[in-house]
Amino acid sequence: MSWHRKHLLTLEDLTREEILHVLDTAESFKEVSTRSIKKVPALRGKVVANLFFEPSTRTRISFGLAAKRLSADTIDFVSAGSSTVKGETFKDTSKNIEAMGIDIAVLRHTAPGAPKMLSECIDARVVNAGDGPHEHPTQGLLDIFTIREEKGKVEGLNVLFVGDITHSRVARSNIWGLKKLGASVGVVGPATLIPKKIEELGVKVYYDLDEVIGEFDVINLLRIQLERQRQNLFPSIREYSRLFGINGERMKRAKPDVVIMHPGPINRGVEITPEVADGANSVILKQVTNGLAVRMAVLYLVSGIK
Amino acid sequence: MSWHRKHLLTLEDLTREEILHVLDTAESFKEVSTRSIKKVPALRGKVVANLFFEPSTRTRISFGLAAKRLSADTIDFVSAGSSTVKGETFKDTSKNIEAMGIDIAVLRHTAPGAPKMLSECIDARVVNAGDGPHEHPTQGLLDIFTIREEKGKVEGLNVLFVGDITHSRVARSNIWGLKKLGASVGVVGPATLIPKKIEELGVKVYYDLDEVIGEFDVINLLRIQLERQRQNLFPSIREYSRLFGINGERMKRAKPDVVIMHPGPINRGVEITPEVADGANSVILKQVTNGLAVRMAVLYLVSGIK
Amino acid sequence: MSWHRKHLLTLEDLTREEILHVLDTAESFKEVSTRSIKKVPALRGKVVANLFFEPSTRTRISFGLAAKRLSADTIDFVSAGSSTVKGETFKDTSKNIEAMGIDIAVLRHTAPGAPKMLSECIDARVVNAGDGPHEHPTQGLLDIFTIREEKGKVEGLNVLFVGDITHSRVARSNIWGLKKLGASVGVVGPATLIPKKIEELGVKVYYDLDEVIGEFDVINLLRIQLERQRQNLFPSIREYSRLFGINGERMKRAKPDVVIMHPGPINRGVEITPEVADGANSVILKQVTNGLAVRMAVLYLVSGIK
Repeated sequence: MSWHRKHLLTLEDLTREEILHVLDTAESFKEVSTRSIKKVPALRGKVVANLFFEPSTRTRISFGLAAKRLSADTIDFVSAGSSTVKGETFKDTSKNIEAMGIDIAVLRHTAPGAPKMLSECIDARVVNAGDGPHEHPTQGLLDIFTIREEKGKVEGLNVLFVGDITHSRVARSNIWGLKKLGASVGVVGPATLIPKKIEELGVKVYYDLDEVIGEFDVINLLRIQLERQRQNLFPSIREYSRLFGINGERMKRAKPDVVIMHPGPINRGVEITPEVADGANSVILKQVTNGLAVRMAVLYLVSGIK
Repeated sequence: MSWHRKHLLTLEDLTREEILHVLDTAESFKEVSTRSIKKVPALRGKVVANLFFEPSTRTRISFGLAAKRLSADTIDFVSAGSSTVKGETFKDTSKNIEAMGIDIAVLRHTAPGAPKMLSECIDARVVNAGDGPHEHPTQGLLDIFTIREEKGKVEGLNVLFVGDITHSRVARSNIWGLKKLGASVGVVGPATLIPKKIEELGVKVYYDLDEVIGEFDVINLLRIQLERQRQNLFPSIREYSRLFGINGERMKRAKPDVVIMHPGPINRGVEITPEVADGANSVILKQVTNGLAVRMAVLYLVSGIK
Repeated sequence: MSWHRKHLLTLEDLTREEILHVLDTAESFKEVSTRSIKKVPALRGKVVANLFFEPSTRTRISFGLAAKRLSADTIDFVSAGSSTVKGETFKDTSKNIEAMGIDIAVLRHTAPGAPKMLSECIDARVVNAGDGPHEHPTQGLLDIFTIREEKGKVEGLNVLFVGDITHSRVARSNIWGLKKLGASVGVVGPATLIPKKIEELGVKVYYDLDEVIGEFDVINLLRIQLERQRQNLFPSIREYSRLFGINGERMKRAKPDVVIMHPGPINRGVEITPEVADGANSVILKQVTNGLAVRMAVLYLVSGIK
């Protein structure tokens, strides 16, 4: 297939074929990362701008390295100041940076829909690097890439998301992508952190992890934002860990070849114990490695260069 | 002509011929920015250091991109800490960074004259990226470049600066440059924000914008620093906007082909309403684009490379 | 000789031959810095990550430039936040960044031994850029490189360190290196800032600078951390300066060709007066210049590329 999109805003938008095309492209870029000279000239002379209106060192470094590996120049605009959070100023800032001649804007923003709005007001290509609780499409793609790599397929797999589903853009992007590729998706977590209408996305909802853990091929542990606790959305870290944390004991109820994922950074001892995080079923660091290949693929595809 | 200056410190220093030479060089670099591969090898292996002792994300990104487009390596030194504001430490910091082998130092500083002082104590080339209320020569050059591009000439044009003339390095650099190229310059603003001796630069002073707006070919709106209000230098934002802000109503009194400029970032609704900022007469984003070409030209010329 | 080490963690570890090999390699890289195009393709396609868990602008810029001059790509991870100071998170952060495909990690950390720990848990090469009061091997190497350059040899020289020996990783790395190359090393400073067992390293301890200053070929002035004063480790800045600061008067007691060094940034008027810092015996800026060549050599050697 050929790729026609100028932007990557959501996985909700993409077709099954488009998702597979990104995964296949990422596979060939992953090979580049194993070479002695880890660079291809695909985006030489192009400029990739990281516009981060919400801080995220890891995602920013990952996109930056992906761009450099494609030989693009990069600029970083990082702002957590309240004055730029307002839509108007965000738009002006972005248009100004675009006027400097950037080709691709990688946008992280607290507001759902900010990347879409940006794509409508600038000519540069836009990649969503996380927009509030809405979507984080490259994280979804790198998770699905990792699943396919580990299991050899996505179709027919049972994938479980554990934790704070309500506030998770990672879960949302994954669910759209996994469903399109034919996986079954379940979510489990505290009732206060599961959105009411999630079943409309074709997702099964569970509240007792131990009861269902044995049914799943892949378990993706969402990061607990410790500040949610202050909002009384779950009783205590200890209680959370007891009910939903993955430890060696709980792993005994899981399939022996279950794949354990986490978008990072992990809270050791909360969502996952060190023995599991560093154990044989964990692919957490592979996710990070694959993130680079997936982001190279996304930057390359939206650039429109053949 | 050939260029002999090692530094770009002010537009006051430059001759008419030198200014025209920068503009012509910038024109050829502007063409580079329209290519698919927006890079030339002119400064390959050279190091451009952004030394920003006063924060300015946009100017720093613009110089950084200009350097990368010339294939230079770049380093960013950003310090807003009080300890480095003292002359002594500023000098030591700069000499240390120079000792690492930089070729061009781009300096932003709160102290007028800091770039000149730096040029006297280091061997690297120095470009002034704004020194307090003194000068901002690359902004002056990019404004003049944009005027020439829009109007086909500079000589004989009437150019008006609106707002806080006293604290504006942008106005000061523009005035030097525009006068040398044969334009007539006027300034208008609150009496508290117009310096007493400005007429000695050959500039006409006005206090009523509506009375004179129809006479000008170009109107350059200076950014209002909202903190000046606390110093009682003008009554209120609302009052400022009423008297000196450019809105659709006021535009009816201006020439139909008047060029509206602003060095950014704009305060929408204060110096300019959205309808004018985003309207047909506004060249605000073109100024940003031209800034890159002008900064490429300046870095290239001071480098001494032919 | 050929180089087999994957990491540069300490000078304590290195043999005399290895130290000389770094110095000789640095000499050939210093030549690169005098070329018009200051770049070699040695590390093209490699990624050097600056992991700075303690801020240090100068050292970070020096390593960054060294990497760029070798044509490597660079990423900067800077964190002074308390959450990442904990061993666990530091390890996770580093492993995550490694998973993005970095080749060399340059680590600055407040904890002694952090680089060694890192070298044991990641596959990338590790360079210690300062670990608490333990070692700062590239600073030691650049100081020794500068001594050899100035004096034509190291063996047989008398080298004195002045100031806060207890907290100085610079002194510690220098002492290991200088002793291995056959120099005699003395230390002088307030009794409260000289560690009790320092003589076990083969170092002579003095308390009166004026009495011994005439015996030394090289004097390396350590930076006084002004916050030590609050810990009552020395009486006052003025007293320190009177007893241990190098000024024109004290220089009269020194050898005429004594080499005055300082790792920077200097506190003018405390460890050294401007007349000495900027005088003919001072090699302070040469140290900075040599730092780049030494860091190029270290990055090149640990990379394992021939």
